[in-house]
Amino acid sequence: MTDFLDPSALTIPKIDAASRARGPGLISFAGGASHSDDLPLEQLTRALEESLSPAALAYGAARGEPDLLAALRDYFAGEDVDASPERTMVTSGAMAGLDLVFRRVIVPGDVVVVESPTYSDSLISLALAKAEVVELPMDEHGACVEALPAIAAEAGPPRAIYTIPTFHNPTGLTMGLERRRRLVELAAELGALLIEDDAYGALRFEGQPVPSLAALSPDVVSVRSLSKIVAPGLRLGCVIGPAPFLAALEQVRGGVDICASPLSQGAAARFLGEGEVDTYVRHLVGVFRARRDAMLAALAEHFGELGAEWSRPEGGMFVWVRLPARVDATRLLGVALEEGVSFVPGRVFSAHGEHGSALRLCFSSVREEWIAEGVGRLRAALDKLPATA
Amino acid sequence: MTDFLDPSALTIPKIDAASRARGPGLISFAGGASHSDDLPLEQLTRALEESLSPAALAYGAARGEPDLLAALRDYFAGEDVDASPERTMVTSGAMAGLDLVFRRVIVPGDVVVVESPTYSDSLISLALAKAEVVELPMDEHGACVEALPAIAAEAGPPRAIYTIPTFHNPTGLTMGLERRRRLVELAAELGALLIEDDAYGALRFEGQPVPSLAALSPDVVSVRSLSKIVAPGLRLGCVIGPAPFLAALEQVRGGVDICASPLSQGAAARFLGEGEVDTYVRHLVGVFRARRDAMLAALAEHFGELGAEWSRPEGGMFVWVRLPARVDATRLLGVALEEGVSFVPGRVFSAHGEHGSALRLCFSSVREEWIAEGVGRLRAALDKLPATA
Repeated sequence: MTDFLDPSALTIPKIDAASRARGPGLISFAGGASHSDDLPLEQLTRALEESLSPAALAYGAARGEPDLLAALRDYFAGEDVDASPERTMVTSGAMAGLDLVFRRVIVPGDVVVVESPTYSDSLISLALAKAEVVELPMDEHGACVEALPAIAAEAGPPRAIYTIPTFHNPTGLTMGLERRRRLVELAAELGALLIEDDAYGALRFEGQPVPSLAALSPDVVSVRSLSKIVAPGLRLGCVIGPAPFLAALEQVRGGVDICASPLSQGAAARFLGEGEVDTYVRHLVGVFRARRDAMLAALAEHFGELGAEWSRPEGGMFVWVRLPARVDATRLLGVALEEGVSFVPGRVFSAHGEHGSALRLCFSSVREEWIAEGVGRLRAALDKLPATA
Repeated sequence: MTDFLDPSALTIPKIDAASRARGPGLISFAGGASHSDDLPLEQLTRALEESLSPAALAYGAARGEPDLLAALRDYFAGEDVDASPERTMVTSGAMAGLDLVFRRVIVPGDVVVVESPTYSDSLISLALAKAEVVELPMDEHGACVEALPAIAAEAGPPRAIYTIPTFHNPTGLTMGLERRRRLVELAAELGALLIEDDAYGALRFEGQPVPSLAALSPDVVSVRSLSKIVAPGLRLGCVIGPAPFLAALEQVRGGVDICASPLSQGAAARFLGEGEVDTYVRHLVGVFRARRDAMLAALAEHFGELGAEWSRPEGGMFVWVRLPARVDATRLLGVALEEGVSFVPGRVFSAHGEHGSALRLCFSSVREEWIAEGVGRLRAALDKLPATA
């Protein structure tokens, strides 16, 4: 049956299924979510009960349900982003929103600039869209946007620039304001659509908030997730951008997934509209800060003297650890699983096989009391990794 | 912003937004669903309450949740289809399943054979995948499959053949068993993947059941909908097919929408697993039969002497009406909306502008007592349509 598959899609980076392993006793730093015990079960149970109606079980509108669109407009007004209904579409999760944007924009062979590293699932979507992915280096302040003109000169003018400027996946880093302004300018100069993936921005637990790209320019297409601030199981996100662009997305929605679940949308509209979200996010941020602190302390304890480096995120879910270049993180994962800990090896965050000795550690999904133990196991795995490789 | 859109996607057939109009007093034959009052609100309320748990609000597995996969396996065993978990993936609705199959298979420019007419949203998905769509004529027994070799000789070998063999959308017609067997043979001979869209098969209200293509060959990729037998608002469907093909779909699921809602899946698993579905579908089938009868009677009364022809579906949701060739159904829709009735004009069901004088009427979404009135309004609209066109 594999004869029937589009062979060009085989250039998709192989995600190591091992990193998705689950089991009793396994401490998984491999996810990208909160712990399931952190989810707002009580509030969403109430919201779902109030939402249940024949309309919630029927087909919905391609753009999203009016109640949720209104709640999103009000929510994003709080960060100076214009998410009025003509600029917004509710999608079946943020990934579905990114995927829709990519495929509506990209002509096979188009150059698309991404950060290096970048979100592995977005690389899959870009591979399906047959984009020519070009990677932009990052430093501790986020993407090195000044390199864009040189990249465009070498690879050809990009159709789009895809960035995760806040609490970046996988590094946890945040791009500063001046660099954001410059990125907006350069995208306009290069004639590239600027696509912002802002799934984690609400989860800041220290430092000053930085405006999202969408707050800096109405031309940015900004994709948001309700998985982090409400719950992943609802499968909701949204795309915010220029009205004509959103109209073009709406035109094809029927051929993609028709609509997002009106039932989920009703629950999310209540959760956002009644202000439950603020209380919940405040709670989550406190929990995540403690988990990050536990992880940074454990890394200092176990990896401090190894020549390893790691990021110090001010929010979000991830710490990015760069081990000495001789370490193959994919091989390390095999040993780590035997030790009872998992993570995502760095290579999946590059379309070109970069970051082979890096690891993405998700601290948000592991209870604080298990984090030091997990990092200790990781160190034990590193110590056991055969040097001959 | 439209500068940023892939221009090749502009070949997507324009769906007349007017056909989606809703309003007080409007009788809409334009949908493709049951009436929202027919939905199993009580049963699903219970099923959702029982499903609510932290796991239901967290991310799910790319393949689908084990409970629903088990329920699907048992459900489809009842129609002799092997939907074991390694051959099945739960998708966010049937359209999302079709879309995933199309984009994983189609290389831009590939020939894909579809029925003429065929489901409009699938044409959008095929346009996004940049397929070269070739239309296979239909007669009253479904697609004229014997024309396939000639089509392949002329247009080039098809990568895939997409068919809706049972209670076809938009015509309501069903392909007979011999033709199905021949289609399976011809697809194999031509080296084409046979993709079955079976959203309506459970909704038979008269005549003998015919095996689905998936029941005739394990090589068929069969896409199913839970929107018709459970509820559209859950956004659930599934893809059934050869295990290696399903593994290839799983490989890219992360870049598409990560997973279907575990909350919806929990509710659907209970609805299917506890046998509620059989009682519900039996009820639905009785209701739909009465609505079809009402529509056929009204068509005979109002359109009998006009040289119009229409299908007589044995199940599903649609009647296809062919008006005399001089009638432009898209223009008719404009007048019909003024009369208080809507439908979907035939042209959207062709990639090549065919079926301009046909209409798709959905009888399942309109209460029986309103159907005669709606068809009467349609006749009034036809009588008012300016002859100068």
